[in-house]
Amino acid sequence: MSRIVKPFEEERGITRRYLLSGAGKFAAGMAVASAAGAGIVRVAGAKEQRFPWPYVKLDPAEVAEVAYENWYRHFCAYASISGIIQPLKQKVGEPYTSLPLAAFEWGHGGGVGWGMTCGTLMGSGMAAAFVAGKDGEKIINDVIAWYASTELPTFRPKNPKASFKNINASNSPLCHVSVGKWMKKEGVKFFSPERRDRCARLSAQVSAKTAELLNLWADGKYTTVHGSQASTYDITAQNNCAECHGG
Amino acid sequence: MSRIVKPFEEERGITRRYLLSGAGKFAAGMAVASAAGAGIVRVAGAKEQRFPWPYVKLDPAEVAEVAYENWYRHFCAYASISGIIQPLKQKVGEPYTSLPLAAFEWGHGGGVGWGMTCGTLMGSGMAAAFVAGKDGEKIINDVIAWYASTELPTFRPKNPKASFKNINASNSPLCHVSVGKWMKKEGVKFFSPERRDRCARLSAQVSAKTAELLNLWADGKYTTVHGSQASTYDITAQNNCAECHGG
Repeated sequence: MSRIVKPFEEERGITRRYLLSGAGKFAAGMAVASAAGAGIVRVAGAKEQRFPWPYVKLDPAEVAEVAYENWYRHFCAYASISGIIQPLKQKVGEPYTSLPLAAFEWGHGGGVGWGMTCGTLMGSGMAAAFVAGKDGEKIINDVIAWYASTELPTFRPKNPKASFKNINASNSPLCHVSVGKWMKKEGVKFFSPERRDRCARLSAQVSAKTAELLNLWADGKYTTVHGSQASTYDITAQNNCAECHGG
Repeated sequence: MSRIVKPFEEERGITRRYLLSGAGKFAAGMAVASAAGAGIVRVAGAKEQRFPWPYVKLDPAEVAEVAYENWYRHFCAYASISGIIQPLKQKVGEPYTSLPLAAFEWGHGGGVGWGMTCGTLMGSGMAAAFVAGKDGEKIINDVIAWYASTELPTFRPKNPKASFKNINASNSPLCHVSVGKWMKKEGVKFFSPERRDRCARLSAQVSAKTAELLNLWADGKYTTVHGSQASTYDITAQNNCAECHGG
């Protein structure tokens, strides 16, 4: 970590230039909406410009239960986006109603089982983006940092489908690393009821954590905690360099 | 690689049970739509059930150019989904028109710069899902396997914004590994015009490759090539185990 710079430096630079170009009208709409919190920019004949989408504060406990149950339908990415978007379909309606949540299922297992971005973060990142636009990027950045440094999952579902003994801090937002360390600690295989339930509870907790930050944001009380990984390392990176690059 | 089993074994098992439950009506609609190729299931009062979305075959060369130019607006994930969805907004209209592509920007740098799933795969995976539903999962699985084993990018844009000398096979779909190996080979830093253009061309080529497979799928000529990573390794994983776990 050779230097700390302002978060999202690269993005801001390009977005500013883009906003000044003719093609930047959509982005300009986003910036206005973002500045207004949960405000909506409406432009006749351009439905896409209604972004980000309207938000009403959610009960994180409800979010967690929805996500937990939905893991057993379509796994982690679907579970974690649906924890937030499914209640918003009921409380807000359109444009959430038209979003097919099944489109996010492929993020399971870190992307069709390739062990990349934990699907709970992929799903919650998408939810944060639809709700908060560019601010959603700051929120999911904080959620990822929290995920990698926190003993998870501590969420207890109302109707648990399995039980297990261990929680762990992954030191990584990668599915393979996170679930692999937990499987070793718990002493179970990937295709086991315990592992499934660990991932279902993790989906619930990540979705609820994201809803908590979105609630703060809706109240104008959210402040970014975590900085830019790329600016810190001069490359896109996690914080666990030695795990792959030697001690 | 101790054993090879049928792809997506776990998913099929759960989906089948889910289809038999009362909550599985949406998934049942998906299965019908999937079986009919680009067919649409319409159910009164349930807009979400119109999934996957209608597709018309795209020109991969056009897809690549759209994605390349869009990288310089909102980076890799936005670029690669927009290469496919932006032309479909024009050729098909709704429901594509209402999808705010800016919501996918946060996938840049492997997820807000954390170096996880290459944003080109996140964006193309989302596009494949909206277009092809569960078949999109098989398609992006093949695209990920191709990405990790192919010397990229070989795409040459009509109006290049920078030039560079090297291409590389990453042996990994992770942003950090892929771009890191390329930076070392090219001898440039992350915040350089060469690296930016490498990622812009990669976005273009991944988006175009995905469109090629979607075109085959629309013609009923697509067959899955790559199997299930999780079933092969008994954990979600890439194929480059020794890179982190020793030689």
